[in-house]
Amino acid sequence: MRRKSFGTMNCSVAQTLEVVGEWWSMLIVRDAFLGVTRFDDFQTRLGISRNILTNRLEHLVERGVLERQPYQDRPVRYDYLLTEKGRGLWHVLAAMRQWGDEWECPHGPPVVVEHLSCGELTVVVPTCTHCGEALDAASMKAHAGPGAGPGQLPVLAGSA
Amino acid sequence: MRRKSFGTMNCSVAQTLEVVGEWWSMLIVRDAFLGVTRFDDFQTRLGISRNILTNRLEHLVERGVLERQPYQDRPVRYDYLLTEKGRGLWHVLAAMRQWGDEWECPHGPPVVVEHLSCGELTVVVPTCTHCGEALDAASMKAHAGPGAGPGQLPVLAGSA
Repeated sequence: MRRKSFGTMNCSVAQTLEVVGEWWSMLIVRDAFLGVTRFDDFQTRLGISRNILTNRLEHLVERGVLERQPYQDRPVRYDYLLTEKGRGLWHVLAAMRQWGDEWECPHGPPVVVEHLSCGELTVVVPTCTHCGEALDAASMKAHAGPGAGPGQLPVLAGSA
Repeated sequence: MRRKSFGTMNCSVAQTLEVVGEWWSMLIVRDAFLGVTRFDDFQTRLGISRNILTNRLEHLVERGVLERQPYQDRPVRYDYLLTEKGRGLWHVLAAMRQWGDEWECPHGPPVVVEHLSCGELTVVVPTCTHCGEALDAASMKAHAGPGAGPGQLPVLAGSA
């Protein structure tokens, strides 16, 4: 069953889901960040059917998240490598990992992350590009941007 | 068709997907952050069937992301409000929005975000909790954490 496409929604979150929102896609991207490049290694780690894995890898290549590089000629076999666009998903993945660590992992984080330049185990803190303060939901307000369409933001009783 | 559960995978990204990885869930959470609380308002903004929306809202309530508060008695009607756990998804959503802005929105961001305390339109910068430096994929290394199981990280040729 093909799900509804979010491709026509004028929303960056929906556009991101259109590229990596399929069940499995973010776990494939996660493993690519951990250095997995080959079909059989993705399959073993994920326990996914070859058919679904083939589809997901093709979609991620089509949308520019992964690129294929042949490592063998007869038969041709590929490494799947993150592109610059794919590496940009690091922040999404880190935020997901940290939320799961906090709310869904009662036995402690399965994975911790070292910041190589300072040598410490790190937690990613979202900060403001202007003032450097740590950000959270309560400190922010959304406005229509240059690419906004009509009805971009909900009109709510009591909102400005 | 019920998809494979990620609930048994020992991975915080998989656990996060188990809670909010269903198609639509992050768009419901997005709208909740924008102040939408009522069934009909979610439905109108998302263009989703009542049946699917009911299922998704129930799942998000069961998993503690949203809570229901009655605003009317006969018939009983509910507001759906983000819990503390739900508000914690703000960072995930911000990272998704920014990736979509950068890679999938050629006409510019549909939504921009003001940091209320400094008054500037802001971009969320992921920084290290120890040294405060901006982080990216290349500056980090994953290690097995206290909740790790066997084979938590892939064993790769050339890795330490």
